Amino acid sequence: MKIICHKSVLQKGVAIVSKAVSNKTTMPILACILIRAQNGVISMTANDMELAIETIIDGTIEEEGMLALEAKIFSELVRRLPDNQVTISSDASCTTEITCEKSRFHLSGLSGEEFSSLPAIESASQLTISQFTLKEMIRQTIFSIDENASNKQMAGELLEVKQDELRMVSLDGHRISIRKIQLKQPFPPVRVTIPGKTLNDVSKILSGDNESEVILSFTHNHVVFQFEQTVVVSRLVEGQYFKIDQMINSDHETEIVVNKKDLLNCIDRATLLIKESDKKPIIMNISDQSMEVKLKSSIGTMNEEIDIEKHGRDIMIGFNPKFLIDALRVIDDEMIHLYLINAKAPCHIRDEQQSYLYLILPVAFSSF
Amino acid sequence: MKIICHKSVLQKGVAIVSKAVSNKTTMPILACILIRAQNGVISMTANDMELAIETIIDGTIEEEGMLALEAKIFSELVRRLPDNQVTISSDASCTTEITCEKSRFHLSGLSGEEFSSLPAIESASQLTISQFTLKEMIRQTIFSIDENASNKQMAGELLEVKQDELRMVSLDGHRISIRKIQLKQPFPPVRVTIPGKTLNDVSKILSGDNESEVILSFTHNHVVFQFEQTVVVSRLVEGQYFKIDQMINSDHETEIVVNKKDLLNCIDRATLLIKESDKKPIIMNISDQSMEVKLKSSIGTMNEEIDIEKHGRDIMIGFNPKFLIDALRVIDDEMIHLYLINAKAPCHIRDEQQSYLYLILPVAFSSF
Repeated sequence: MKIICHKSVLQKGVAIVSKAVSNKTTMPILACILIRAQNGVISMTANDMELAIETIIDGTIEEEGMLALEAKIFSELVRRLPDNQVTISSDASCTTEITCEKSRFHLSGLSGEEFSSLPAIESASQLTISQFTLKEMIRQTIFSIDENASNKQMAGELLEVKQDELRMVSLDGHRISIRKIQLKQPFPPVRVTIPGKTLNDVSKILSGDNESEVILSFTHNHVVFQFEQTVVVSRLVEGQYFKIDQMINSDHETEIVVNKKDLLNCIDRATLLIKESDKKPIIMNISDQSMEVKLKSSIGTMNEEIDIEKHGRDIMIGFNPKFLIDALRVIDDEMIHLYLINAKAPCHIRDEQQSYLYLILPVAFSSF
Repeated sequence: MKIICHKSVLQKGVAIVSKAVSNKTTMPILACILIRAQNGVISMTANDMELAIETIIDGTIEEEGMLALEAKIFSELVRRLPDNQVTISSDASCTTEITCEKSRFHLSGLSGEEFSSLPAIESASQLTISQFTLKEMIRQTIFSIDENASNKQMAGELLEVKQDELRMVSLDGHRISIRKIQLKQPFPPVRVTIPGKTLNDVSKILSGDNESEVILSFTHNHVVFQFEQTVVVSRLVEGQYFKIDQMINSDHETEIVVNKKDLLNCIDRATLLIKESDKKPIIMNISDQSMEVKLKSSIGTMNEEIDIEKHGRDIMIGFNPKFLIDALRVIDDEMIHLYLINAKAPCHIRDEQQSYLYLILPVAFSSF
């Protein structure tokens, strides 16, 4: 194989496919990036058997062929090359020469033969949304997965399509995060659990551009993301996700409207009194027009008044401050609505259109 | 004590004195920042018994007194407060109230009585240089100290004044770094070893402004840095520094002139072939007009041609690439001069005025 590509093109390609390179593997080929020059097209591929990413890169093919290079070394090498055209060539024994300006490297590659290609996906119906929207939906839900849970569903997110409604859901036993969008047209029903790692990786590769689109398709055990010159194929989490609609009760006794930033900063300040091992709740004492937020720990005490608009009953309720912070950080609205029933029932944070819903279980507290 | 200061003022003060807060101590008072409001002046002080820093901050004193607060908590608290006036007050039992807008914290402080003040320094003659110059001199030498050496001199830097010449020197057994400046006027002789940690800390606090000055003074066992509203007092390393002039031999057989950035980038690229545990030399094969730089490891090989201007004999010589990189990174000149004798004698990198000199020992290599 012999190809010529610009350093910046190689660097971008490596950054994309590296997400699917296995970090801890006993199989050297899984730690490699496959470069393939075939039928006039140059592609890079990585595949850790859970996630596979392939991207097409610009360049000149002088001799077709393929070659697998250890991803870490190749990525570092490309990064440090001068900003110019790079020639990559390999012989029958996969000895590889990489040259750029007056710099010349020799490395041992592996034959591409052992490399697992992307799983063949039978063409299914395709769902198109903007890259920006998908990236936002991931950002606004991914924080409440539980990667270490014994129930593997919790390490993933539910992606569900019903008619023209797409929603993504994550939960970890203490809280549920739901983001919902309207599709431009109805789509056949989908209900799959996508691994959290896949969503994190896809989110990092997506440009986040509102004009660019990403095409999702689903098979029995795979989800495929296609955008620009890149294809990402991920295994799904096997089994059924939780029946979350049964967990959501939209009744409430108290509704408060509060400035998101004020509340977030106040809770963030309070947490400095918490040592890592500690589990101190933040207590919200809600009465007319005002909410007292307080926290007490071995380090000291904090209390602060926040202006609110309140409808319904007075209430005092305690939360794990981290759960409130996580949800508040991803909400873009300036003013937010909290719905409460009593000190033992979950708090709902949602907008009017229910495009987002964050449900957080309260914790017991001793008043002070 | 009761004082009112702006959050930004407190934050700046904490950032300065924090460098002298002890991270690992069994004495709680050493992990504190002392706030003192006396004679109309508010100051913050930290002292880990090696290094002491005191800075004066703007604010209003409502009640004089002093108070020691745990530095980590206080620093985090100040950082997260709203951008507004902060009131800090303490009662006789050192219970402290910190308020800002509607936020109110209660912490336990310590009495300032146990706090070790800055060592009293008898006024000595004072050396004035620009903050920029001192910061640069530290940056350009600090990398070749050896903090873990059994010889404590190596963990510090020599600061030496002879007439109107000030030089700073560091060495670690494989290399020597020297930076020299001319003073505006002669100064009594000084020859002290300043701990590397002190120089690192001072360097971080200095604004690096060419217009602002720093005043150095020396006692038998302390060095004092005074700048703006801040005083830094550090212990010196006891004992005599190495006699470095005996180690420098300015003869040479070969002189090369090379573009610094080209050489630095080339060596940096080569090092990607070195695994951490490996000790592979970079080999420079110097002949007329051109230098071949090469490295060979278990990962692969690299070679690159670099244009040079050469005077004197051809030579092939090997170096630990890290030592070359460290020196090249801190030199500001575009073109640099390397002086060589033979493959076993140290390489000198210096400018014409000898304002800097980097001496690096070569390593043995097997040619390939």
